[in-house]
Amino acid sequence: MKFVIQRNRLVQAVNEVTRAISSRTTIPILTGIKITVNDEGVTLTGSDSDISIEAFIPLIENDEILVEVENFGGIVLQANYFSDIVRRLPDDSVELEVTTNYQTNIRSGQASFNLIGLDPAEYPKLPEVTAGKSIQIPISVLKNIIRQTVFAVSAIEVRPVLTGVNWMIKNNVLTAVATDSHRLALREIPLATEIDEEYNIVIPGKSLSELNKILDEGTDSIEMVLANNQILFKLKDLLFYSRLLEGSYPDTSRLIPTETKSDLIINAKSFLQAIDRASLLARENRNNVIKLMTLENGQVEVSSNSPEVGNVSEKVFSQSFTGEELKISFNGKYMMDALRAFDGADIQISFSGTMRPFVLRPKDAENPNEILQLITPVRTY
Amino acid sequence: MKFVIQRNRLVQAVNEVTRAISSRTTIPILTGIKITVNDEGVTLTGSDSDISIEAFIPLIENDEILVEVENFGGIVLQANYFSDIVRRLPDDSVELEVTTNYQTNIRSGQASFNLIGLDPAEYPKLPEVTAGKSIQIPISVLKNIIRQTVFAVSAIEVRPVLTGVNWMIKNNVLTAVATDSHRLALREIPLATEIDEEYNIVIPGKSLSELNKILDEGTDSIEMVLANNQILFKLKDLLFYSRLLEGSYPDTSRLIPTETKSDLIINAKSFLQAIDRASLLARENRNNVIKLMTLENGQVEVSSNSPEVGNVSEKVFSQSFTGEELKISFNGKYMMDALRAFDGADIQISFSGTMRPFVLRPKDAENPNEILQLITPVRTY
Repeated sequence: MKFVIQRNRLVQAVNEVTRAISSRTTIPILTGIKITVNDEGVTLTGSDSDISIEAFIPLIENDEILVEVENFGGIVLQANYFSDIVRRLPDDSVELEVTTNYQTNIRSGQASFNLIGLDPAEYPKLPEVTAGKSIQIPISVLKNIIRQTVFAVSAIEVRPVLTGVNWMIKNNVLTAVATDSHRLALREIPLATEIDEEYNIVIPGKSLSELNKILDEGTDSIEMVLANNQILFKLKDLLFYSRLLEGSYPDTSRLIPTETKSDLIINAKSFLQAIDRASLLARENRNNVIKLMTLENGQVEVSSNSPEVGNVSEKVFSQSFTGEELKISFNGKYMMDALRAFDGADIQISFSGTMRPFVLRPKDAENPNEILQLITPVRTY
Repeated sequence: MKFVIQRNRLVQAVNEVTRAISSRTTIPILTGIKITVNDEGVTLTGSDSDISIEAFIPLIENDEILVEVENFGGIVLQANYFSDIVRRLPDDSVELEVTTNYQTNIRSGQASFNLIGLDPAEYPKLPEVTAGKSIQIPISVLKNIIRQTVFAVSAIEVRPVLTGVNWMIKNNVLTAVATDSHRLALREIPLATEIDEEYNIVIPGKSLSELNKILDEGTDSIEMVLANNQILFKLKDLLFYSRLLEGSYPDTSRLIPTETKSDLIINAKSFLQAIDRASLLARENRNNVIKLMTLENGQVEVSSNSPEVGNVSEKVFSQSFTGEELKISFNGKYMMDALRAFDGADIQISFSGTMRPFVLRPKDAENPNEILQLITPVRTY
């Protein structure tokens, strides 16, 4: 293998694929980046066996030569050293050459590095994801779906399937649900692509969080392909593979209350700020308990008490409160996570009693499942 | 105690004094901020008993009312809770009121916090620093002196005096020296103030680092007052006290070689980048060993070898090399620290043999002690 490549493109590809690489892997070769070059271009691969990322740099792009190849081939180089090196190389171009015994020479300007590499044939094969139906989705929509659900996945592995987000596709509608059994986040959107099949998959929360970090905001679309316990997200020069979680996701639809006893219409941004303040003294409690009590004239009081530190209370003006008077307690962190999903819009919170789960939705939502956040209260009153 | 204060001024003062506060203190009341108000204004104090910082907010500034006082008094409030609270308060002004048993009510907009405070009479008294001669120094100069020396203090407490920077004032010249016995940083500047006395003090490196973080760049001067094992830095509304280290600082002047066998003139910035690259593979070695070897035509080669990872070498063009040919090895981190003190200027490195300390100075320095960095080589050749 021997080629010369533009340094900034190599740095970008290295940054992308290292997102998949974990230093805690039990498979030593996965601490490396696989680099291969053929007559189309240079491909870098990083993987922790759950997530795999492949970045491609073509030989030529927009009449500009990005890669000049002398010999085809491949190598696996230690990701931490290789990424530090390429970031600091002095010249705009870099020459990579594999000599004997997987020794790899990296030259740029007057600097010359020799790294001891590994046999690329030992690197695990990426899954083949070709069969499934391909679905197009705007990147901005995908980022919102992830951001509005992924925080609610379970952080503990007691029920592994709950560490993922359940995606269901049926009648051209995508429904994403995450729950840790104390709260639930749900997002539903119609798809532009016509999908005949039905899908019901569980994507690891960590995969979606990493994907969200890689995706730039913008108007482009991304292509998703589903097959064989894998989901593949395809961008122009980037492939993002994630393993799917096994096991069937619980049916969460019966958890969502259908009746309501009290309804609070309030601005998500100002309510979030008040909850944030009320949480300041509660953070050392295990459940970060915040109390909410309705007052007169559509006001609500949020308060919290931490015996050794002090207490806090704040009156918040709502747009309206209708129905039964209410005293309810909840986990302040869950409430803040849920409120952030609404981007500061006006919301409706529907309560069905002090000990029943309550539901947050956009005010005047046409589809009750467009954005839905459910929180189970804490027993204090 | 009861007063109303502009929130942004309170936040600024809290940010300043919390720099002195350590959660690991053995004196519980020092985890708090002392707040007092009298007929001049509000004073906040934070301390870890080594460093103490006092921030003052006057009642009126530039015809603008900053503080409205109803009752004089004082209180000590937990720094972590109090700073989180004031940062998140909803309104531009804040009311603080101490009620019974050091209960303190903090009100802003609709939010109301009650914190359990402590008796301000229990808070340790700050040292009295009045006697000493006061010395004016531009802040930009002070920041440079700190930055160019403090990194070389010893990180280990075996000889406590070496964890500080030695400041000597004699004949209107300030000399600052730091050494961990493997390398030494020295900075000498003439003072504008006429000083008859001679001083020889050792300021803890941590104090100087914290002071440097607090000081904004700018053209203002700062006043320094020396007395009773304390140094006080006085800004307009800020007092920064540091304990001085006891024990006599070693005489370092005899460590600095007076003869030279080889001289390298090189740009500090490009040399720093080459050393940084050569250090990439050496970082897991204990001493981060970099080798330097003179080549022909004023070139030098920097190289490093890490048996399990690989090796790196780079030719660096110098402006000139004169004297004996040279092979020498040194700690790459020490070299990078030293080079950063020169802000990318051209420098002269004077060697007096493979096993003798070598010295970095600005090229064409009029005063050989203006900026001096000394590094002891590592034995490898």
